[in-house]
Amino acid sequence: MIDVKALFSLSYGLYIVSTGYDGKLNGQIINAMIQVTSEPICIAVCLNKDNYTTELLEKSGYFSASVLDNDVSMPFIGNFGFRSGRSHDKFANCKEWVIGENGAPKVKENCIAAIEAKVISVTSAYTHKIFVGEVTSAEYIREGKPLSYADYHILKKGKAPANAPSAIFNKL
Amino acid sequence: MIDVKALFSLSYGLYIVSTGYDGKLNGQIINAMIQVTSEPICIAVCLNKDNYTTELLEKSGYFSASVLDNDVSMPFIGNFGFRSGRSHDKFANCKEWVIGENGAPKVKENCIAAIEAKVISVTSAYTHKIFVGEVTSAEYIREGKPLSYADYHILKKGKAPANAPSAIFNKL
Repeated sequence: MIDVKALFSLSYGLYIVSTGYDGKLNGQIINAMIQVTSEPICIAVCLNKDNYTTELLEKSGYFSASVLDNDVSMPFIGNFGFRSGRSHDKFANCKEWVIGENGAPKVKENCIAAIEAKVISVTSAYTHKIFVGEVTSAEYIREGKPLSYADYHILKKGKAPANAPSAIFNKL
Repeated sequence: MIDVKALFSLSYGLYIVSTGYDGKLNGQIINAMIQVTSEPICIAVCLNKDNYTTELLEKSGYFSASVLDNDVSMPFIGNFGFRSGRSHDKFANCKEWVIGENGAPKVKENCIAAIEAKVISVTSAYTHKIFVGEVTSAEYIREGKPLSYADYHILKKGKAPANAPSAIFNKL
């Protein structure tokens, strides 16, 4: 028996994963990110196969991951999290971002830290892909409290978009 | 430039990953666990290649992951987290656990939830392996607040063992 309430008890932060390829930039909100090694430092991010960020990342091989601050607004999250970059320029609505060393955009607005990585492996799992990236830069932007997924749900009364790994939560 | 303080701002829970093979049981503490898909539900755990749990898991193909409660004691964590199961029977010091449906032990003591999974892929990343498991059962054990990695570090003044993905934190 699978009681999805058990999956609820996993803890996450909330991040913006961004990439760029051939002049096209996109980013999306994720919760499924972990550090996997420390020497060298690698991180893993999990993205839905249908997402535009995933499509661009498979071509570029580089991404950034920015750690959202607890005081971020829902409209800011909504810009990156609830619309597709295929029909909407997410970076036009973001005030503070740069093109990182690898060519991937790096969001700094409302973020505590931003990490850049080069993809070293891609693993498919049904609807999603796990990208492991070797970290090429990591910037601590400003002091703050990282936004947790629990805070996001409880305090912001947010909902996960339909194709997030934890989308099943919305059905409860 | 890599400022490891940026990696500090990632959010995690704390979990016990357990497995059993050929009569041998072992479990270890991890922070690097995520849900990767929702239909079917899959989770991913990241383990050091040198760990005994990893050795057994590669043979068994099944594991459980238990979500630690915020009020867990340091000695309980220490039993699973700071000693090798090669020379120490960790389950002898655990009062509440069962053999799960797949044959992997499932820790319930000091845990909010326990999830069982069958490995569907293994990805190597330098010192660690990422095991993706399709969830076969998920039990919500009791109400509680999941222990976060931040709480563990700040409140318990704990340190990560040397072969955890985030061991670099201990060098700060």
